[in-house]
Amino acid sequence: MNAVEELNRKGRQAKEASYQLAALSTRVKNKALLAMAAALREQTSFLLQENARDLEQGKQNGMRQGLLDRLMLNQQRISGMAEGIEQIAALPDPIGEMISQVKRPNGLKIGKVRVPLGVIGIIYEARPNVTADAAGLCIKAGNAVILRGGKEAAFSNRAIVKVMQEAAYAAGLPEGSIHLVEDTSRESATALMRLNEYLDVIIPRGGAGLIRAVVENATVPAIETGTGNCHVYVDSSADLEMAKRIVINAKTQRPSVCNAEEKLLVHQAAAGAFLPMILPELAKRGVEIIGDQRVCSLYPDAIPASEDDWGQEYLDLKLAVKIVDSLEEAISHINRYNSRHSEAIVTRDYAASQKFLDEIDAAAVYVNASTRFTDGFEFGFGAEIGISTQKIHARGPMGLAELTTTKYIIFGNGQIRE
Amino acid sequence: MNAVEELNRKGRQAKEASYQLAALSTRVKNKALLAMAAALREQTSFLLQENARDLEQGKQNGMRQGLLDRLMLNQQRISGMAEGIEQIAALPDPIGEMISQVKRPNGLKIGKVRVPLGVIGIIYEARPNVTADAAGLCIKAGNAVILRGGKEAAFSNRAIVKVMQEAAYAAGLPEGSIHLVEDTSRESATALMRLNEYLDVIIPRGGAGLIRAVVENATVPAIETGTGNCHVYVDSSADLEMAKRIVINAKTQRPSVCNAEEKLLVHQAAAGAFLPMILPELAKRGVEIIGDQRVCSLYPDAIPASEDDWGQEYLDLKLAVKIVDSLEEAISHINRYNSRHSEAIVTRDYAASQKFLDEIDAAAVYVNASTRFTDGFEFGFGAEIGISTQKIHARGPMGLAELTTTKYIIFGNGQIRE
Repeated sequence: MNAVEELNRKGRQAKEASYQLAALSTRVKNKALLAMAAALREQTSFLLQENARDLEQGKQNGMRQGLLDRLMLNQQRISGMAEGIEQIAALPDPIGEMISQVKRPNGLKIGKVRVPLGVIGIIYEARPNVTADAAGLCIKAGNAVILRGGKEAAFSNRAIVKVMQEAAYAAGLPEGSIHLVEDTSRESATALMRLNEYLDVIIPRGGAGLIRAVVENATVPAIETGTGNCHVYVDSSADLEMAKRIVINAKTQRPSVCNAEEKLLVHQAAAGAFLPMILPELAKRGVEIIGDQRVCSLYPDAIPASEDDWGQEYLDLKLAVKIVDSLEEAISHINRYNSRHSEAIVTRDYAASQKFLDEIDAAAVYVNASTRFTDGFEFGFGAEIGISTQKIHARGPMGLAELTTTKYIIFGNGQIRE
Repeated sequence: MNAVEELNRKGRQAKEASYQLAALSTRVKNKALLAMAAALREQTSFLLQENARDLEQGKQNGMRQGLLDRLMLNQQRISGMAEGIEQIAALPDPIGEMISQVKRPNGLKIGKVRVPLGVIGIIYEARPNVTADAAGLCIKAGNAVILRGGKEAAFSNRAIVKVMQEAAYAAGLPEGSIHLVEDTSRESATALMRLNEYLDVIIPRGGAGLIRAVVENATVPAIETGTGNCHVYVDSSADLEMAKRIVINAKTQRPSVCNAEEKLLVHQAAAGAFLPMILPELAKRGVEIIGDQRVCSLYPDAIPASEDDWGQEYLDLKLAVKIVDSLEEAISHINRYNSRHSEAIVTRDYAASQKFLDEIDAAAVYVNASTRFTDGFEFGFGAEIGISTQKIHARGPMGLAELTTTKYIIFGNGQIRE
């Protein structure tokens, strides 16, 4: 069976299941989620055994240690996946909420009600925990899901999905609600991105290359997630001790994630005092400093920045630093180079804070806080499917509500249009 | 200058203007809109003169009368465009609304505020009124706009845009807020769909072919609009007089629009009484009846339906009619063949109405009313940029709010992530 045939078959099954799922009670969805979590715990040894096959293959193919680590499951990680699903079960069900209802002059009552999207495609890389997490979120929001993970995790993903399917269907979830694409060739990824007949939306979770491929090739509506070229701007009026804490946190607390700081902009009036405070501290923590000309002359250990640096997401212990002459220059630099993710200003000046909040074009704009808070859990959503960096449908962390759509339901008594 | 160069230049200008537009007061935006409307009225003779060049060319190229009529401007139509913009000026400004604000346990205040999308691309066909209408809506919601109309209306569109630009910029709208793509080749349409660097969203307004081309080729996030294969289902319990009024209205009041009825499903228990009531009435109004086997045997004038008929949008005085054995069959037929636009049930049965509302997958689901009400004006939005038939971002009629996005603004006092 080729990729297109597999996708069409699973797409059709998922679409059929999605109609039943949309009408399913919260009680049954939660029962299925808790059964999935329990089954993952119970079948830990089966999951570890299948994961070992992926790890073995990865080692044979010379996979880097970092990737092997992401791929690896252990008892704690499996328990973490189960806990994640239990937390999703505990969240309020977004489906069925009447967002608004108006009565029109002709007597029509027009209500807007929250409903599932339908069938969601998730395309991701080598992290098997995404399999459980994404399935849990989609199901809770009443959607069928087609998962397409990376070939590196094929055995692990198949095992996780098998365990979840058996438990969920036994607990009353419609068969066909959860699918894994078994073909892990490039063709299956492309076919999923173009499965318009059955898919309502596709969400990539992974690196910049994957996201670009989806934006470039998908005909199914896609939600762009994840790339974060995040800036912290230290204003002339900043509390420099606060700025130091924020920059160290934003850059070093977890440098490999999309809400970590990648760029530091410093107002020229603060640079003389601030750079000697912050740059040696960062260097001590292993951060490589890349600087514009003025930074390099103040801090000779810095590597001169190239034009390319300003647009890049390092995801590493690297920070490009630039001195700006004004708040306006900081704002226009950020709007030119950022990836519309998370941007912060450190300031004591009211007008500067307002201007930054008003004029920066990003999903999340911070005053006096670390960019690291852009996250579904930190925002209080209880869970997250990803962070949208596009402007349509959802912007910023996406929780359960972002996995839904609305429909208008109209109550008439014979109205016709004149 | 080729299409790509033109698009890049205009895209860059629009992006720059969009930052100023996002911060512009409602007062200035409204002043610009009213100036645009006044200028259109004042320059009626210039607009008619340029429109005459398009009409002349259309006649020479053997354009059909229907298309010539859509292309034609007259004093009344120009006045209608101006009135449309004045109505947009009178609507409340969606920008700046704080949709929610929460205070997190760590003291962070996280607000969600409504902001413009940025730069919107509108791609459309030969109707010059779309030029004024789309520009007015985009500007009011704080967006820059790049218009790409059909080559048939090139002179008219250029004239309308010139008049609007001069008036708007003189009234304080940032230069570069309104653009028309002058190159009307296929290349310019494709280039606009792929202008990801500058465009935040693209919205097609036109026929099924145009919409398909955008879905197929756009890498810019697109909003699918317009195709409507709408059904009216007459339940066994229906008030047949009401059903007759609704079907005649939905089918014949304006057959060329997307919310017109294309299919009639009748419960077998009602068919014997209802078909003789409705089909001759429709035929009398010039409607061609296409029927499934059972319909053809009850009403021999019907043309036998082919499988293709059930998925088609006729946009014409044609109606395909089918007898179904149950409400369940009606729902599953509709979910299989509809275009997710507007669907209606006529019933006196409470449970049937609830089931239909719950289970039909469409932007608008009606009980006992004509599908013709799916429209921004009828829904009380005061204006409409189109009707979304996709599920992400917006579903159903799109007014000013659907031309916006949100951003999170976060007020901290030094918070860092542990």
